[in-house]
Amino acid sequence: MNGSLLNPDRLLEIWEGHRRLTLRTVEAFPEDKLFAYRPVETLRSFGEMMREILDLEAGYVHGVATGEWIQPELYGALTTRQELLAACRAVREETRRLWPRVTTERLLQVEEDPWFGAGPQANLERILYAIENEIHHRGQAYVYLRELGIEPPAFYER
Amino acid sequence: MNGSLLNPDRLLEIWEGHRRLTLRTVEAFPEDKLFAYRPVETLRSFGEMMREILDLEAGYVHGVATGEWIQPELYGALTTRQELLAACRAVREETRRLWPRVTTERLLQVEEDPWFGAGPQANLERILYAIENEIHHRGQAYVYLRELGIEPPAFYER
Repeated sequence: MNGSLLNPDRLLEIWEGHRRLTLRTVEAFPEDKLFAYRPVETLRSFGEMMREILDLEAGYVHGVATGEWIQPELYGALTTRQELLAACRAVREETRRLWPRVTTERLLQVEEDPWFGAGPQANLERILYAIENEIHHRGQAYVYLRELGIEPPAFYER
Repeated sequence: MNGSLLNPDRLLEIWEGHRRLTLRTVEAFPEDKLFAYRPVETLRSFGEMMREILDLEAGYVHGVATGEWIQPELYGALTTRQELLAACRAVREETRRLWPRVTTERLLQVEEDPWFGAGPQANLERILYAIENEIHHRGQAYVYLRELGIEPPAFYER
């Protein structure tokens, strides 16, 4: 780190730590509950939230790395845990492949993207938002698991 | 930011944004549910989770700023929304007062603290963990609010 608080490698490392915990959370769900369990009508299942997490990751990382903003909602068709875990692997492999192009310069660049509608923002804000959104929804999944009588993975382990 | 991805001011700004959303979430709870509502026995109320959030903030910020690690669990006695909101204000004022001493050098310092038992870690990790823990528990509170028939505040607004 050499006197700097954050660099692109460390940023990916933080995200990878969260993703490992997110995958343990997905795996903790019984197969028949991941896309089906919602405590109330106004909440989505954790499987549906995971689709959004992958859409954000795929769209944001591609855009930040290349400057080309692709249409998200690519993962709306996933309906089983196996498909979801395979998509997680594929999206994360692409993230790792593109990450060398996620430079400090690209992260500090302020731009607009046509898909997510947040207006102009620094690309770093996008990546931080994707991570925060993942933590937020995973927190919701912890409640679902407890309601299903299942102990969630330890939060402090990454 | 001048070519750097993160500095202490920006780190506090990120936390302040999350705290504003967390306070809106506290305020969205009916007074009689904040410390009472738990969907199942194995979950804490959001009021109880907020005590932990304040303990972490108070203990970590004091330790990172001064190098002196004080005993947490100062906020275990809060039982009403009014007391909780007052404690949030007091703890946050102290955070802002101490923050000029939360330098890049202090954040990069690896040390142990006697209270939280995480072993030696960079102080930046502690502050990031406090923020992540707040996002995680606030996500759980969103589920509680939905279960109580209340629409939570918009997640993307800080």
